[in-house]
Amino acid sequence: MRYVKLAFKRVAIIGVGLIGGSLGLSLRRHGLTGEVVGCGRSHVNLQDAVRVGAIDHFEMDPAAAADGADLVVLGVPVGGMPAVMQQIAPHLERHCLVTDVGSTKHGIALAARQAFGEALPRFVPGHPIAGTERQGAAAAMEDLFEGRRVILTPLAETDATALQRVRGLWEALGAVVTEMDTHHHDEVLAATSHLPHVLAYALVDQLAGMQEKREIFEYAAGGFRDFTRIASSSPEMWRDIVHANRDALLPVLDAFRSSLAVLRDAIEKDDEETLMQCFTRAKTTRDRLIRLADPEDAANPDLPDP
Amino acid sequence: MRYVKLAFKRVAIIGVGLIGGSLGLSLRRHGLTGEVVGCGRSHVNLQDAVRVGAIDHFEMDPAAAADGADLVVLGVPVGGMPAVMQQIAPHLERHCLVTDVGSTKHGIALAARQAFGEALPRFVPGHPIAGTERQGAAAAMEDLFEGRRVILTPLAETDATALQRVRGLWEALGAVVTEMDTHHHDEVLAATSHLPHVLAYALVDQLAGMQEKREIFEYAAGGFRDFTRIASSSPEMWRDIVHANRDALLPVLDAFRSSLAVLRDAIEKDDEETLMQCFTRAKTTRDRLIRLADPEDAANPDLPDP
Repeated sequence: MRYVKLAFKRVAIIGVGLIGGSLGLSLRRHGLTGEVVGCGRSHVNLQDAVRVGAIDHFEMDPAAAADGADLVVLGVPVGGMPAVMQQIAPHLERHCLVTDVGSTKHGIALAARQAFGEALPRFVPGHPIAGTERQGAAAAMEDLFEGRRVILTPLAETDATALQRVRGLWEALGAVVTEMDTHHHDEVLAATSHLPHVLAYALVDQLAGMQEKREIFEYAAGGFRDFTRIASSSPEMWRDIVHANRDALLPVLDAFRSSLAVLRDAIEKDDEETLMQCFTRAKTTRDRLIRLADPEDAANPDLPDP
Repeated sequence: MRYVKLAFKRVAIIGVGLIGGSLGLSLRRHGLTGEVVGCGRSHVNLQDAVRVGAIDHFEMDPAAAADGADLVVLGVPVGGMPAVMQQIAPHLERHCLVTDVGSTKHGIALAARQAFGEALPRFVPGHPIAGTERQGAAAAMEDLFEGRRVILTPLAETDATALQRVRGLWEALGAVVTEMDTHHHDEVLAATSHLPHVLAYALVDQLAGMQEKREIFEYAAGGFRDFTRIASSSPEMWRDIVHANRDALLPVLDAFRSSLAVLRDAIEKDDEETLMQCFTRAKTTRDRLIRLADPEDAANPDLPDP
């Protein structure tokens, strides 16, 4: 790693939301880039991005932002990736690296193969497992990636040096980087992220339709607030993710619906044994394994059970 | 309220878990009781309760704890309430008030009618909407009820002064008290608390059965951790709640399963309009109404939308 060049002269961040903005902010604060140019559809958001220090300046045209950059980061919603790739491809410098922060990887790999041509080996698909329900550059945080996991899903064509440089960049920001193939990434994320989002949206939407709506939320305590936090995420972003990862999401969603049907019958029949088995397995699993999500804990496999 | 006597001489807390323990701790710190006697099945937990200052001393027999008390608080899991009521009923002083902190109210009202006889008017069913996924007296918090809602569900037989005294007690601890009938309470809680718990347990149990289990939890980010926090709650407690509130829970669970089926078909058919409608309604509802769960915000209905 010692010999991998870390710093970039000009980083273009196309789509300066919470993730793109936080990346710009951290790159600048860590002195890893000469300049950061932002690009996006919302003038107001780009002005926010300048104000909070996430970018130095901005362009409204992705091609203009990519011009002269030695790193382009794609931070637009996954549904917008193919169009942006097509727009920037003819403008990429010969040495320019491209990476993305999209939540699904198979569709993005397909789009990259169509768009990038000879630049394809310098595209390193990535996914920082970070974020909150807040949106936009104004929510950018300098330390968003510190201690968080970043998954890179290199293609067969991906250049080893390009991969090393993108890995080095994330590691320099304090992230813990792992690599896996695109399909596996999409399956794991369907279970841990996309399915929970669908459930949270479905639940809150259902309660929103109930007559006692106002009252229901008045008596919603901390557990409910935590459980439904992800239902405050961007609808556009999640429509895109659900669409892009449909093939991995549907099987895990159907498996959940079957499990829920079993549990429902156990509740109706007062089958306390089935309920206890399910609840106990769930509690044991979560108590023991949730700490794996914290890379520092994961480094210590001998942690006692809580 | 000024003329309602607040303090008690001897409070018996039967079932000294997180809620019972926190109540004992707050009563003692606020000087609202001469002594607090605890009672429960676990000697270790009762010793914890003494150590953290939740109780002064303890009895292993509910009848002995209730003897001489002017307030008995029932904090055992809802499935254990009927037996404890039967045990203490013959030992209640003529002026002794009884309240409970159970998460379902209809079944508890039925049990009270069977157990208490002439003491029934002095039983005030209650439910503090507070708590975390942690369990036991060691997790007790002095300020657990500050700014939180407490629902009282008085029976037709409940004495007005008894109701006022129990209300005054919670208000003295900083809680915001409201009253509703038992059925309505059970419906509202089925939607906001019991259904989310069932969903969280079902999801984590499903992931626990997946081959990539360890990996799945390694890549679970903050959203997942929040979403599944309630799956770390006590299985025994939730088996009891689900059983006790079955009649209110099943309809809301079935409505959820129907909503989820609609959403699943929209995902399969790439029906982006249905997805956007659902996700947007959910986000709007949560963003606007979740603040109602904070009584201080609810007091200010003119809060701008976020």
